[in-house]
Amino acid sequence: MAYCAEIIAVGTELLLGDIANTDAQTVSQGLSELGINVFYHTVVGDNPARLKQAVEIAKSRADIIITTGGLGPTYDDLTKQMLAECFGLPLELDEAQLVKLKSYFEKIGREMTPNNEQQVWLPKGCTVLENDWGTAPGCAFFADGVHVLMLPGPPRECVPMMRERAMPYLEKLSDGVIVSHNIRIIGMGESSVESKLREQMEKMENPSLAPYAKEGEVLLRVTGKAESREAADALTKPVVEKVQGIFGQLVYGVDVANLEDAVIALLKEKGLTLATAESCTGGLVSQKLTNVPGASEVYVGGVCSYTNELKMQLLGVSKHILDTCGAVSKPCAEQMARGAALNLGADIAVSVTGIAGPGGGTEEKPVGTVFVSVYSGGVHWTRKLNHQGWDRARIRNVSALTALDMVRRFVENSYK
Amino acid sequence: MAYCAEIIAVGTELLLGDIANTDAQTVSQGLSELGINVFYHTVVGDNPARLKQAVEIAKSRADIIITTGGLGPTYDDLTKQMLAECFGLPLELDEAQLVKLKSYFEKIGREMTPNNEQQVWLPKGCTVLENDWGTAPGCAFFADGVHVLMLPGPPRECVPMMRERAMPYLEKLSDGVIVSHNIRIIGMGESSVESKLREQMEKMENPSLAPYAKEGEVLLRVTGKAESREAADALTKPVVEKVQGIFGQLVYGVDVANLEDAVIALLKEKGLTLATAESCTGGLVSQKLTNVPGASEVYVGGVCSYTNELKMQLLGVSKHILDTCGAVSKPCAEQMARGAALNLGADIAVSVTGIAGPGGGTEEKPVGTVFVSVYSGGVHWTRKLNHQGWDRARIRNVSALTALDMVRRFVENSYK
Repeated sequence: MAYCAEIIAVGTELLLGDIANTDAQTVSQGLSELGINVFYHTVVGDNPARLKQAVEIAKSRADIIITTGGLGPTYDDLTKQMLAECFGLPLELDEAQLVKLKSYFEKIGREMTPNNEQQVWLPKGCTVLENDWGTAPGCAFFADGVHVLMLPGPPRECVPMMRERAMPYLEKLSDGVIVSHNIRIIGMGESSVESKLREQMEKMENPSLAPYAKEGEVLLRVTGKAESREAADALTKPVVEKVQGIFGQLVYGVDVANLEDAVIALLKEKGLTLATAESCTGGLVSQKLTNVPGASEVYVGGVCSYTNELKMQLLGVSKHILDTCGAVSKPCAEQMARGAALNLGADIAVSVTGIAGPGGGTEEKPVGTVFVSVYSGGVHWTRKLNHQGWDRARIRNVSALTALDMVRRFVENSYK
Repeated sequence: MAYCAEIIAVGTELLLGDIANTDAQTVSQGLSELGINVFYHTVVGDNPARLKQAVEIAKSRADIIITTGGLGPTYDDLTKQMLAECFGLPLELDEAQLVKLKSYFEKIGREMTPNNEQQVWLPKGCTVLENDWGTAPGCAFFADGVHVLMLPGPPRECVPMMRERAMPYLEKLSDGVIVSHNIRIIGMGESSVESKLREQMEKMENPSLAPYAKEGEVLLRVTGKAESREAADALTKPVVEKVQGIFGQLVYGVDVANLEDAVIALLKEKGLTLATAESCTGGLVSQKLTNVPGASEVYVGGVCSYTNELKMQLLGVSKHILDTCGAVSKPCAEQMARGAALNLGADIAVSVTGIAGPGGGTEEKPVGTVFVSVYSGGVHWTRKLNHQGWDRARIRNVSALTALDMVRRFVENSYK
């Protein structure tokens, strides 16, 4: 049976536009990996009558309802009460959760105010979804033919609660095991990726193969369902290998979180160090790299040289090049990369210089003109990017991704 | 009359978790500024029956329905057809929009395939919402007692279409003019801000005063409604001034987009230049600053010194300090800032050094220990931050915001 699910996010801050509904995205991604269809997201405020109405509608059209938010200790946290009411269940104090809550407050040395107890009153007979990332536990029950799961709202609780608690619970509902693999591709647009695979994708049902476009890259997800993990692996593995064969070096990783993680892992594997020299990306490459825990093992640092003076002084770019070719040029990009490798003492360096706009463009070098250069041991590899018509944020982000990807490809080809 | 609105976002990619529903946030923010209540968001896929059901439900409970997405040229773009059907309106070819569409394709030198014409079939009698940011026009009509507006889905079209087209249209619906001002506060938590204002906020209806928490800062929105802009200004201005008086220097700006914009504007006003020296934030301060168009007028550049060697070599931090106090220390932060100001040739420099985790913490200096230092003309100002219990991304982001805010406060106090 193919389940269909509805996600109800509870919180007035969502309706005010104060935050985006990333919880619904988190839950949807998880359900999609499990092969569970999602037909609706609903967002409702901290209002009992409207929350109840939303639940009644969801009950009439979904097999699985997953709520996010409204499990906390304040008077406007209503989710558990309203869901229990809609499904005719009383709330009961969960003694084990109360002990856990009290010991938490003891540990942080703060008094537990009485309103906190509200968090551990749970629907009678429910399965507790232990929250190791916050104080409000989640819960799950089956009633009136519907599976109901409740998850906390703060994203740093909702994400692990979905992955570590809700997904194992949901996986048991379906007879079989679902395995999915994410193949990450950079350097080719979604429509080209799709057209290369169209024939295969249409024919495939189990495992399935689906593309998702992200800024500057494409994700291909292979999902297989079988009676055991071994059987699901046997279904999905050949497809992953086939896709890797088709796209070759455009695949930067399978089941990795992002490009910077893949680059840091590759540098660690090869025992190489990296430095950066940035102009128009202004620290974005550096920031992405250092977002990876443990980046310091291979990333030595970088220079953001926003002025010509700093390009000369810190990176050794020659005045002659700046005067004749300008800061946005192939020779300048190459001197920046070389200077960064030598002056910062790294095996490899990557540089970015360009015009991110909105001002600063000329007819010869319009906004969106960017040079990216990789240097290592006397060898240069430089590319000119033409991102005309894009806004500043997109030009900067895609240029930073290109810089990271060029480092990856340079290392893969030069340090075998 | 207080209108209540529902936002329906159309797109299977939302239900798959491929993207977050930022369009609903965009529309909610705009409606909130206009004083229009939003009671529900709904997300539905590119499926005619389910879209129709969602519209019928919204029709029964909202005065205003705003849809996002599904206006494009492909077969799964169904929004206009289904909304017209639900409200009993035929679609008609809009000749003026067709001319505009054809000339667009001529301009970019591509043939207009027949499916593109679908975009300019609009509900009979509707008001066209001109789309200057993409090919699919929006539209608005009033039928069965409900105001319906349709906006395109891609965020870079949806944002300007909401601000420039939908908001002026909606403003005319309400009798009167709504003026809102955003007061941005940094350095005090939401609950403290709220408790300082609780008495005022409860009493106030027009203008209203509402706080919104963001990571590391708080936004206070003052919204007034009156018969004319002058009258609305007269209502809101004294409240803005009163709030500024209460929070003093904690207010970094009124009606500014973010802290980095405020810092760049302040430096331009004072004619000062800035440099950065980053360790644990790894380029995040630099990246935020250079995200502001025109930052190059005042920001000279920065160094991301991830190793001790680079701290010594590029910033002149002494080996003695690194050996005795360590890289995460007040003296190191101060030498980094001083070195950046002198070596990079800027009037002011700010440095950040700390332990962002998850590894690298000790009992004496646990994860979350961060030093931020500002230097200018022989004067140091240094703060120690204790962000224990936070994850890497949050420690880095709030440390970067603190660095920018310390620059702001230093300049405000020292360069009057």
